[in-house]
Amino acid sequence: MSLPNPLNHPILEQSFAVIDQEIGEHSFTPAEYAIVRRVIHSTADFEFKELIRFSPGAIEGAIAALRQTTPIVTDVTMVKQGITTLVSKTFQNPIISAVEQATQAAPGQTRTETGMLRCWADFPQAIYAIGNAPTALLALCHQIQVQNPQTDPHPTLIIGAPVGFISVLESKATLAQTPIPQILVEGRKGGSAVAAAILNALLILATEP
Amino acid sequence: MSLPNPLNHPILEQSFAVIDQEIGEHSFTPAEYAIVRRVIHSTADFEFKELIRFSPGAIEGAIAALRQTTPIVTDVTMVKQGITTLVSKTFQNPIISAVEQATQAAPGQTRTETGMLRCWADFPQAIYAIGNAPTALLALCHQIQVQNPQTDPHPTLIIGAPVGFISVLESKATLAQTPIPQILVEGRKGGSAVAAAILNALLILATEP
Repeated sequence: MSLPNPLNHPILEQSFAVIDQEIGEHSFTPAEYAIVRRVIHSTADFEFKELIRFSPGAIEGAIAALRQTTPIVTDVTMVKQGITTLVSKTFQNPIISAVEQATQAAPGQTRTETGMLRCWADFPQAIYAIGNAPTALLALCHQIQVQNPQTDPHPTLIIGAPVGFISVLESKATLAQTPIPQILVEGRKGGSAVAAAILNALLILATEP
Repeated sequence: MSLPNPLNHPILEQSFAVIDQEIGEHSFTPAEYAIVRRVIHSTADFEFKELIRFSPGAIEGAIAALRQTTPIVTDVTMVKQGITTLVSKTFQNPIISAVEQATQAAPGQTRTETGMLRCWADFPQAIYAIGNAPTALLALCHQIQVQNPQTDPHPTLIIGAPVGFISVLESKATLAQTPIPQILVEGRKGGSAVAAAILNALLILATEP
């Protein structure tokens, strides 16, 4: 049990109390549980308890970066929309929606993928949150695979939560093979609300001592 | 099986084919199935097959209204964001986000509820899509309950898909008791992506003969 955070609406805290009662046993750290609980709140789907994976140090690194106003790159604008209010009330990080960086797709790419490659060129050390497009996550991972992991700048965190039936499992498996700090939603599930919930939970954690 | 629609990305059509293979038996009409399938696509959650309810004539009425550029009122901006692209490519309906209509909550209300009551005053015959805030759905239903159903203008459609643990079941039960045409997601599940998927499916149906 954590103390209520004044940035959370009382109804949100009431929801958290219901989830606390129903979640059952788990082995999450308090910070991991804060993230899992916010995802369950946003979906009413307790299956996410079994799906979310954290790489070592991912949460701590993301908290430090959020406090330093590291930019946040989202694949689609719904994810950006889902975090705008809390970002404005906390650290005012720049938020860049990849799909908005491309007016059309480059040949053989989705528009989100084209926009993501532009964001990568501009913000290689950003926090990346993918809630929709597996093509964007794959493009990001392929850029990382051709880097020198010792010397080249790399993302502070990748949130891998694309949803759906085509290329989603492949994109998540590719992310899992990179050395980048990551919060990954296994399986087909994910979505804009899930990616936004993970970021919002990290923002709340970053406001706490 | 329906023909591919040129407004749908090829990856979306591939996803639909996977869902067609996995959905199993059901008794949806083709139009109902188009909506259920798009929700499952946006969530990768086949449980929605059991949760979505359509009142008689709801889809037909919504299609006619969309073609006549009836305004669409969403509770939160994530739902608006999720339909903006397809609305711009089809009927250019005005889209109003209720929460944006209130800079702060009236006493004893949530901000979304306050904004929804303003939308109700301006657009009583709109298509309403609630993907987040049960308080907004309850406020809307309470307005309808004090109307004269024979003479007063009423919403063309209410999409009842708030998500979560507090007041969500109550708000959906209240909607179900109104005579308003409705597409309702039973239980705790729902969300901005679900509400947007229902609207996007309706927009695609409205482009078809």
